[in-house]
Amino acid sequence: MQLQQLFSPSVQHTLDVVGIFVFAISGALLAVRKNFDVFGIAVLAEVTALGGGLFRDLVIGAVPPAAFTDLGYFLTPLLAALVVFFLHPHVERIQTGVLVFDAAGLGLFCVSGTTKAYSYGLNLTASATLGLATAVGGGVLRDVLANEVPSLLRWDRDLYAVPAIVGATMVVLCLHYAVLTPLTSGLAAVTAFVLRLLAMRFHWRAPRAWNRRSTVTEE
Amino acid sequence: MQLQQLFSPSVQHTLDVVGIFVFAISGALLAVRKNFDVFGIAVLAEVTALGGGLFRDLVIGAVPPAAFTDLGYFLTPLLAALVVFFLHPHVERIQTGVLVFDAAGLGLFCVSGTTKAYSYGLNLTASATLGLATAVGGGVLRDVLANEVPSLLRWDRDLYAVPAIVGATMVVLCLHYAVLTPLTSGLAAVTAFVLRLLAMRFHWRAPRAWNRRSTVTEE
Amino acid sequence: MQLQQLFSPSVQHTLDVVGIFVFAISGALLAVRKNFDVFGIAVLAEVTALGGGLFRDLVIGAVPPAAFTDLGYFLTPLLAALVVFFLHPHVERIQTGVLVFDAAGLGLFCVSGTTKAYSYGLNLTASATLGLATAVGGGVLRDVLANEVPSLLRWDRDLYAVPAIVGATMVVLCLHYAVLTPLTSGLAAVTAFVLRLLAMRFHWRAPRAWNRRSTVTEE
Repeated sequence: MQLQQLFSPSVQHTLDVVGIFVFAISGALLAVRKNFDVFGIAVLAEVTALGGGLFRDLVIGAVPPAAFTDLGYFLTPLLAALVVFFLHPHVERIQTGVLVFDAAGLGLFCVSGTTKAYSYGLNLTASATLGLATAVGGGVLRDVLANEVPSLLRWDRDLYAVPAIVGATMVVLCLHYAVLTPLTSGLAAVTAFVLRLLAMRFHWRAPRAWNRRSTVTEE
Repeated sequence: MQLQQLFSPSVQHTLDVVGIFVFAISGALLAVRKNFDVFGIAVLAEVTALGGGLFRDLVIGAVPPAAFTDLGYFLTPLLAALVVFFLHPHVERIQTGVLVFDAAGLGLFCVSGTTKAYSYGLNLTASATLGLATAVGGGVLRDVLANEVPSLLRWDRDLYAVPAIVGATMVVLCLHYAVLTPLTSGLAAVTAFVLRLLAMRFHWRAPRAWNRRSTVTEE
Repeated sequence: MQLQQLFSPSVQHTLDVVGIFVFAISGALLAVRKNFDVFGIAVLAEVTALGGGLFRDLVIGAVPPAAFTDLGYFLTPLLAALVVFFLHPHVERIQTGVLVFDAAGLGLFCVSGTTKAYSYGLNLTASATLGLATAVGGGVLRDVLANEVPSLLRWDRDLYAVPAIVGATMVVLCLHYAVLTPLTSGLAAVTAFVLRLLAMRFHWRAPRAWNRRSTVTEE
């Protein structure tokens, strides 16, 4: 369990809450766009911010999950929902700023998710997979509840999962070679963060299946 | 665990089965409307009736969940599916009656869900949240499986979650002040029930985000 | 736990990996049809292949689930995703062959899922239900993520769940009468397999609700 204390507990908690807040903003904005009411905005904020970590905690057997034991984790998305409820035109206007924070959340969550899974005894591959799930799972649940194809899976979106995979992989390599420190895990988070920013800036996208045009009809 | 015995076990079990039955009816009716076959009707009845409690049990670590250990809980939705399969035009005709029973289920489940979560050691906020999830979770899963936007989140539906939130909040207040008795929890369930009936009667709705029309395109 | 050793461990593991592979192929093919990128193909392959077993393991409290502890289970869907990524026109061409393998996966998973649930102490009904969920759950998750109505629930698809229900029921009957051996469980798997093949060959379908045309509008 010591592994979780990469940073001092208060620093780690602050980073978590920041990540939760920015993910919640993205959920609340989608809810506004889908014309949901204030309750729907709050639900989508909660699910987006806490869904990935909830899935990870159920899989590793950390029940009740942190989402239900830490009051700060629960209240932060409600605050984000309120901000979006009253100020969403302003939040929309700073959409780029929101995406930068979302990229920061992605970096933080892939590192903390991987570390927590490993501290519960999962092997390196499973830990990295759960780190990825922690980072992107909330967004997938958000899109499923909003009845949209998860933007994570669409080819016409800039790379989102790959930066998280790189960050999670750096963490498990550090774990394997016993060099995981606040510095190296900070480096992994920053790498994922910067890769995501670059993917947005240069519209990096992943390839689709080979020869698909010849045989598959566009939908 | 004593907390769960608010009513005599047989009374509690009967109330649970009634709530499961009416939720299952709503799932089965949606399946008929979506043109599913008899198996799809049964699946949607099961998921709607047991999904909320299943989620709660996974979160609090009560495995295997009650949905899989109590044969009565499992068979009741199948009975509801059969009723809808053969009699659905009649069930549709008494749609208002079904909605009244569904409101009763909402009241019962938000109380029993909150109480069970608290008895597993969760804090008051988390208990109320899980009580809400118990009451509305099955309906959300029903809509996701039917590939529709969850009616819970739509602004153009009468208040559904708010009555459950009020009921769950009353339960945690009673727990906090150590005055949870069959009487007070019955009162909480009835309050949620009556609020839902009033919301349907007067079409109470929750507000959407401020100024949304000015900046967001309707979909 | 001895019950799980119906076959020698290596035989059982091989059968599991075969089932995982063919389910992953079906997920990857849907991802190509939905125009997902290579990452989306991999995710849908993983979810389709491992989702049913993951749900079963969470319900019976077998955490961390096998999907996260067995590296072979995790890597097999990635292999299937690669095959589809490069060769999908060829895989599409042998669609019938894929469906035959998928039917084999259905037979294998309903038997192994039922047996594992029973070995964790669930009653016979719950074990059969989880066997069914193991066999069909991945496909449901696949369709939900692809934002489609689960083909499992649609009336216009050949019977898929019923063969799995028959297989799972045979297993619990064998468990009840203490005659579950490699032979009888193999027989249950083959029965489910053959029933599914017959359902595809003769387009067997389940009935929809009685009198539905008279009162329900087609969507």
